[in-house]
Amino acid sequence: MLESIYLVGLKFINMLKPYSFLFLLSFSLLSINLADAQSSNEDALFIKKIYNQILNDGDCYDWLHQLSTVYGGRLAGSKNADRAVLFTKSIMDTIGFDKVYLQECIVPHWERGAPEQVDAHFNGQIKQLRATALGNSPGGKAKAEVIEVFSLDEVKKLGRNAIEGKIVFYNRPMNPSQIRTFNAYGGAVDQRGTGPAIASRFGAVATVVRSMTTMTDGVPHTGVTIFGEDKPTPAAAISTLDADWLSAQLKKGKVEISLETHGQLLPDVISHNVIGEIKGSTYPDKIILVGGHLDSWDIGGGAHDDGAGCVHSMQVLRTMRKLNYQPKHTIRCVLFMNEENGLGGGKAYAEASNKNQEYHMAALESDSGGFTPRGFSVDAENDVFAPRFKMMTEWLPLLEPYGLSLTKGGSGADINPLKGQKGMLIGFRPDSQRYFDFHHTSEDTIDAVNQRELELGAASITSLIYLIDKYGL
Amino acid sequence: MLESIYLVGLKFINMLKPYSFLFLLSFSLLSINLADAQSSNEDALFIKKIYNQILNDGDCYDWLHQLSTVYGGRLAGSKNADRAVLFTKSIMDTIGFDKVYLQECIVPHWERGAPEQVDAHFNGQIKQLRATALGNSPGGKAKAEVIEVFSLDEVKKLGRNAIEGKIVFYNRPMNPSQIRTFNAYGGAVDQRGTGPAIASRFGAVATVVRSMTTMTDGVPHTGVTIFGEDKPTPAAAISTLDADWLSAQLKKGKVEISLETHGQLLPDVISHNVIGEIKGSTYPDKIILVGGHLDSWDIGGGAHDDGAGCVHSMQVLRTMRKLNYQPKHTIRCVLFMNEENGLGGGKAYAEASNKNQEYHMAALESDSGGFTPRGFSVDAENDVFAPRFKMMTEWLPLLEPYGLSLTKGGSGADINPLKGQKGMLIGFRPDSQRYFDFHHTSEDTIDAVNQRELELGAASITSLIYLIDKYGL
Repeated sequence: MLESIYLVGLKFINMLKPYSFLFLLSFSLLSINLADAQSSNEDALFIKKIYNQILNDGDCYDWLHQLSTVYGGRLAGSKNADRAVLFTKSIMDTIGFDKVYLQECIVPHWERGAPEQVDAHFNGQIKQLRATALGNSPGGKAKAEVIEVFSLDEVKKLGRNAIEGKIVFYNRPMNPSQIRTFNAYGGAVDQRGTGPAIASRFGAVATVVRSMTTMTDGVPHTGVTIFGEDKPTPAAAISTLDADWLSAQLKKGKVEISLETHGQLLPDVISHNVIGEIKGSTYPDKIILVGGHLDSWDIGGGAHDDGAGCVHSMQVLRTMRKLNYQPKHTIRCVLFMNEENGLGGGKAYAEASNKNQEYHMAALESDSGGFTPRGFSVDAENDVFAPRFKMMTEWLPLLEPYGLSLTKGGSGADINPLKGQKGMLIGFRPDSQRYFDFHHTSEDTIDAVNQRELELGAASITSLIYLIDKYGL
Repeated sequence: MLESIYLVGLKFINMLKPYSFLFLLSFSLLSINLADAQSSNEDALFIKKIYNQILNDGDCYDWLHQLSTVYGGRLAGSKNADRAVLFTKSIMDTIGFDKVYLQECIVPHWERGAPEQVDAHFNGQIKQLRATALGNSPGGKAKAEVIEVFSLDEVKKLGRNAIEGKIVFYNRPMNPSQIRTFNAYGGAVDQRGTGPAIASRFGAVATVVRSMTTMTDGVPHTGVTIFGEDKPTPAAAISTLDADWLSAQLKKGKVEISLETHGQLLPDVISHNVIGEIKGSTYPDKIILVGGHLDSWDIGGGAHDDGAGCVHSMQVLRTMRKLNYQPKHTIRCVLFMNEENGLGGGKAYAEASNKNQEYHMAALESDSGGFTPRGFSVDAENDVFAPRFKMMTEWLPLLEPYGLSLTKGGSGADINPLKGQKGMLIGFRPDSQRYFDFHHTSEDTIDAVNQRELELGAASITSLIYLIDKYGL
């Protein structure tokens, strides 16, 4: 018989490889059953239902497709941002939330204007660099000799004599040895965030910054820069390929850069957070928030940053409805406006919440992309953290079969202002390896998002919210 | 001062998010230090060196770029396979191994021939289906009415009366609810592996199979099919989009398919495993094998399957040399030929090894793609497994900071024949979510591989091999 040959033959053992994991799965479910009793078993089954619902019938990918293509590039203050507010509210209006509303917030209104142009001049030749003006940077024109530096301190040490009249080129790469790419970003982003201000303070006429990515490619990465009390001067990021080229060229001799940007900081405008909730049956006044930020940089689709977090969050409540799960606590989905350049939405939300004497028992933000989930990082005021975190770690046997861990660490920029309410703040942590391939670029579009990875993220967040709701914190 | 605003201001706390992970990293290193003493600390430092070497100066991505583009589509028995043997040997010859050699093996020689054509005929219209003939399937022409089934059992139940003269269409999807995609593959691949043989046994003139993927797209997935004693008949996989269309069309009425394939099973030929090793200083007769398979399906570049495993394996020895690490045990890199349609290389290797009375203390295979590592699954004969696996789990504090776990489970098709030597067999387990987006398709090319993810895989494998070498098993 063919099947028996198939089953016993060494020749085709490669086909059998996959089955070994079935054993592993049953092993995991078994250990849950042994570890606890009936309620754990109920939880394991309900979590399995959550995953099944989202992997078979989830809406998050379709929502993200529309949000990031039809409403892509939705910087706070822009028309796209306003349209994205109405679009996501219309989704919430139609999927069975108890209450849906907009919450006003004040946001800055920066516009890029016409495309920036950055050219290198050397040996009588001109090379166009792939560049993108930094958010908040002013429009302007400059042409000057380039000086390459690797840190803010280097600019300060070099001082006005060396810097005045020049274009400063920050070129410290993100460190590829960092396993979590966010660490590498954290170790380099000061060059973009305050590098232009420091350069300006010492007399530079403009700044170019190496893009924040470990990829070597031709894609420039934008992001916010802050001038504070320093004079705003034109500032742009250039692609890592162009940064490497420029650095090599500077070793051979003098290079001038001519740069033209068209950014404009217009008067602040009113925008909105989009909020929807399911009222808790037992503890309606204890809120569990799940959210992401609705705004994105203007040059891409904001698919991973942070369309993914928005659709993750809406999917949580959608799935609860689909599974006829009535939460004990109020589950509130918040899509924050203006995370990228000011946190207007996060601040307005916390202010209103404190004024209304609300209590957020937990708040979870997804703002690290739509990649395969690896777990959650958990934060709270010191005096309340330990016992609640310990309680959460007791859920690990239910989460580990899905590849999820819990660690102590930061949560999210938009929910951090709620920390004073002394609830637990949670950051969703997907795999970080590809995040900075797309972050703040024209490539952060729907084709950069894998549907299964996005859905697994939504399912993992829904599962944790379910456990928090069931057991309280 | 700008920096102090930057550091304390709520407004820019989003820039600080990344730094929280620095704390986590130091926390992890600290717990290693406390858990064990000096040697663990030494190990942690050496593993960090391994990651640094590969993430900053690894060769594996460049090797894979060449292997999968210049030598892409290297089915055993093909000219590309022969050229890939010489290419990978030439790499090994130049990177400082103690010994490099080819090992003969006998492999089947199937050729696809001219492109296959599969057309659906309905209501006087014709629609071309995106299709790929299955490996080992014969050339031939057929035109007949389609009958849709969802399992091999269904064909057997329907019997000859219903099946004879028809084209059988297997359309059971991979189950998207499975968290690990290999489980979903395992639950569907019998339709491709033996479905055509069963259909043929009951008189079908040809078979079409839904492609093995959870993606809904237009890309057909090939793979081996086995006729055994049943009469070989033409067999092709069609894309999931076309399978969905065909299924919907069949609900409306009769559909005929015309199909033409050009496969030929030629006489077996001699091919080669490519082997390189570093001799152990203390236990040269105890072998630690690390390998992948060099052959791939003919229609893509074999980048994830299994170019990734080959370059992972070469990188292990390369990095040991780069770090001047002299292993105590013999570390042997084996690139196996013919995993995809016969395991000729794996069988020849085990046979020669047993004949030479070798002992493989451990063998690790990477054959699940070049994605972010999640850990290893470990297998061995029952009587030796438990104490050695327990010893390996004591290394977890060194591996977990890199997101790596150890589980009991299958290893790899090529190394499985070594199980009788009673060493530990280990399968590298990267994230599985995107694997079946590319598996056995024309899309399995270098652009489907992320450099960092590939390098992290190589570093995680090197780290485990280092620990096995240092402590023995």
